[in-house]
Amino acid sequence: MGSVDLNADLGEGFGAWQLGDDDAMLAIVTSANVACGFHAGDPAGLLRVCRSAADRGVRIGAQVGYRDLHGFGRRFIDVDAEDLVAEVVYQIGALQAIAQAGGSMVSYVKPHGALYNTIVIHREQAAAVAEAVRLVDPALPVLGMAGSVFFDEAARVGLRTVAEAFADRAYTSGGQLLSRREPGAVLDDAAAIADRALNMVASGQVIAVDGISVPIQVESICVHGDSPGAVQIATAVRDRLQEAGTEIKAFS
Amino acid sequence: MGSVDLNADLGEGFGAWQLGDDDAMLAIVTSANVACGFHAGDPAGLLRVCRSAADRGVRIGAQVGYRDLHGFGRRFIDVDAEDLVAEVVYQIGALQAIAQAGGSMVSYVKPHGALYNTIVIHREQAAAVAEAVRLVDPALPVLGMAGSVFFDEAARVGLRTVAEAFADRAYTSGGQLLSRREPGAVLDDAAAIADRALNMVASGQVIAVDGISVPIQVESICVHGDSPGAVQIATAVRDRLQEAGTEIKAFS
Amino acid sequence: MGSVDLNADLGEGFGAWQLGDDDAMLAIVTSANVACGFHAGDPAGLLRVCRSAADRGVRIGAQVGYRDLHGFGRRFIDVDAEDLVAEVVYQIGALQAIAQAGGSMVSYVKPHGALYNTIVIHREQAAAVAEAVRLVDPALPVLGMAGSVFFDEAARVGLRTVAEAFADRAYTSGGQLLSRREPGAVLDDAAAIADRALNMVASGQVIAVDGISVPIQVESICVHGDSPGAVQIATAVRDRLQEAGTEIKAFS
Amino acid sequence: MGSVDLNADLGEGFGAWQLGDDDAMLAIVTSANVACGFHAGDPAGLLRVCRSAADRGVRIGAQVGYRDLHGFGRRFIDVDAEDLVAEVVYQIGALQAIAQAGGSMVSYVKPHGALYNTIVIHREQAAAVAEAVRLVDPALPVLGMAGSVFFDEAARVGLRTVAEAFADRAYTSGGQLLSRREPGAVLDDAAAIADRALNMVASGQVIAVDGISVPIQVESICVHGDSPGAVQIATAVRDRLQEAGTEIKAFS
Repeated sequence: MGSVDLNADLGEGFGAWQLGDDDAMLAIVTSANVACGFHAGDPAGLLRVCRSAADRGVRIGAQVGYRDLHGFGRRFIDVDAEDLVAEVVYQIGALQAIAQAGGSMVSYVKPHGALYNTIVIHREQAAAVAEAVRLVDPALPVLGMAGSVFFDEAARVGLRTVAEAFADRAYTSGGQLLSRREPGAVLDDAAAIADRALNMVASGQVIAVDGISVPIQVESICVHGDSPGAVQIATAVRDRLQEAGTEIKAFS
Repeated sequence: MGSVDLNADLGEGFGAWQLGDDDAMLAIVTSANVACGFHAGDPAGLLRVCRSAADRGVRIGAQVGYRDLHGFGRRFIDVDAEDLVAEVVYQIGALQAIAQAGGSMVSYVKPHGALYNTIVIHREQAAAVAEAVRLVDPALPVLGMAGSVFFDEAARVGLRTVAEAFADRAYTSGGQLLSRREPGAVLDDAAAIADRALNMVASGQVIAVDGISVPIQVESICVHGDSPGAVQIATAVRDRLQEAGTEIKAFS
Repeated sequence: MGSVDLNADLGEGFGAWQLGDDDAMLAIVTSANVACGFHAGDPAGLLRVCRSAADRGVRIGAQVGYRDLHGFGRRFIDVDAEDLVAEVVYQIGALQAIAQAGGSMVSYVKPHGALYNTIVIHREQAAAVAEAVRLVDPALPVLGMAGSVFFDEAARVGLRTVAEAFADRAYTSGGQLLSRREPGAVLDDAAAIADRALNMVASGQVIAVDGISVPIQVESICVHGDSPGAVQIATAVRDRLQEAGTEIKAFS
Repeated sequence: MGSVDLNADLGEGFGAWQLGDDDAMLAIVTSANVACGFHAGDPAGLLRVCRSAADRGVRIGAQVGYRDLHGFGRRFIDVDAEDLVAEVVYQIGALQAIAQAGGSMVSYVKPHGALYNTIVIHREQAAAVAEAVRLVDPALPVLGMAGSVFFDEAARVGLRTVAEAFADRAYTSGGQLLSRREPGAVLDDAAAIADRALNMVASGQVIAVDGISVPIQVESICVHGDSPGAVQIATAVRDRLQEAGTEIKAFS
């Protein structure tokens, strides 16, 4: 049945504020997208989660975002490409040092929130993120959406792109995510989500909202951990995949 | 006449706000203490100054500080050691990536402002800064005050310490800086300051406020660049030292 | 049995981050110390809690703090008096507009965290906070520690001072709070804390750590709400006081 | 020749960082758009400029912006209406307290930078700003662009709108500002700008880029002060208007 990576967002508290159950998620995933301080993540919290990830053998990625603590990086900011290149370099470098101090290293980069969504279609910002990763280390893979402008730009500068899929999101027949504003965009039944994840991995297909089966690239499946229910769903996804003989391991 | 390093604080603007004349100072100094974003320095501005430093062959140091943009890092913050270790790691790492993207690297660490002054005597914070540097790279020297608790702690964890002197500040007969609150604490005559710098380097002595000559360690002289007058003074210091046959070069 | 006010800290989330159960606490207390955005509290969250307080008839106070989101206002910052005056004025004004937009008003001021603790003894910062309140509105009472330098300074500029007590904290025989670093400094048994609150209100006394009964001023009792257990304790305090015939109402 | 108001942006430093010459501008303008801390302006600096404005009889407006110190409020942020309402209320309230502490009051509201430009056409954010002003005080006028969606929304909730014109900017024949990206969009000749200001006030017309004269509403003229040249231009505008018999006074 082959193998697949499971990734989740971690380290997203800030000072006195906690978010999600990092320890629970580190027992489930193989890749941890660790915040870098711009949308969330204070240095001491980041160091703790990197140490835990190192202890458990979970790989660390730099989850880079807009500089927007108040908006948790979920709001588009019309930042200049020059600024964005430097901000992404800065964030990756900061997490590299933190990860190393925690006994590990940064092995990939995944954009967060509004930056992630924006660079699906915004060429200038997509190119800025790709250029930033290249400047830091051209050997760092980027995790994102197959078919995105970001993947075009990343490939153009020689970066390895790793396609992820979302087991708890509805897809259009064009292979895009259905907008969260549409009814049925987010699934919440653990068993259904686990089935869907297995189908994606086993067949390379996903059933779109109109019932048509569409091909989907999936080297990693993104799971969420910011609520007790989310941890339960993530566990169900992992269990279902393993029961079906799929190996859960970090992408190569 | 031997040699001495000249260092100055650079990259201390933030977004629309500029501070000092970085280009003028890069023509004078051999070591640039570049801000790391916590007391000053936006990533794009830091990348620009690192590129300029690389172009001119000026060495880059990470000027780490308290997280305090409003106070420009000039106010003591009673931060926990655990937080401070991680914050310093984070800042050094961020600047390492920026410096590398700019074609150079971080070659040393110098604490900024209130953090600099605090760890002359505050053992817990001094140990935190030293530990952070060690975690990032035990081969990174630290620039600071001879006789400080910080130097004790840095030496204890195996870091190389580089003593700097201030040609524009009055010293007590105990070899300490006279508090800025005392009259005559800060000199402003370019010729007098240049003479003083030369005397420090040539004799390893400084004339204290009570007229006594006291020994002073000096591998680097700190000059300021945040006003037109300051650039003029820095130039005078460099010229005087060179005219006397002292080589201006980065510490080894 | 007279009456007493119950106060608690509210509105202390920030954007995506929540802290405590504001709705539960608004059903318990008579005075809500609402954050002002410097240590916690984004404007939309503050407006929501002010609307809820207005709906329930709970009085709103401005909980002013150091500008330190990362440290949640719990770390001493050596801020200049001139800056602190203006920062406290700014915070009170911001919350006044938010409270008014929510259908209520700011009726008192309570310093938060490290600022609260600092101005028990730090005269310059204490005078700055008092001066700021006076500048905004000399009729605004301040909530704090009887015997503090802050109360001296507040009285000096004509402010009404309202003494609060902590039912879940151990006191020294000198009437001061025992440091949190000492064993037994924080009580966690709901029944014991409720008894203690009642004793404070009924007798004007508190049993200090060495067993001696010491007099204590109490116009308001501070309860905490940042954990499920804390809400339970606050409820126990309120119930015990009411069962004993004490009216729970806002200080006059 | 009637009268006109002159307005300028002030208080736009932050901590150690200065921007523009507030004192020079306070001698020229009749209305000071004072920053509110979100795009610029630390409380102590705001209090100083409000005191100076009060001393000189210059009226104070609240210059509200996006929460974006790094971008100086010049970047669009896709903030939710609920958040924006509360953020604008918060900013106005903060400046009201500061202005009062400085011996004056907030007499109008002017959006800043990217928020100003966005709400020319973005109905949801325009409505949010208008609603915020109404919540604070429905008697506060708003300063902005005639014909903007913001003015529609402001009028809809009963706010008085005050139209401003830019003497140093080129206009299209449709009465809109020519984009800064077009050549000739910003004028820099002091005499030509002063002539243009006079023509706007005297005739209610401006010569558009294609040479056609188009009607323009102007109750206030915006001048800039963030460079020595800008102060000179602002002075020229004021002198030219006064020489022609136009009274420079705050809008009613």
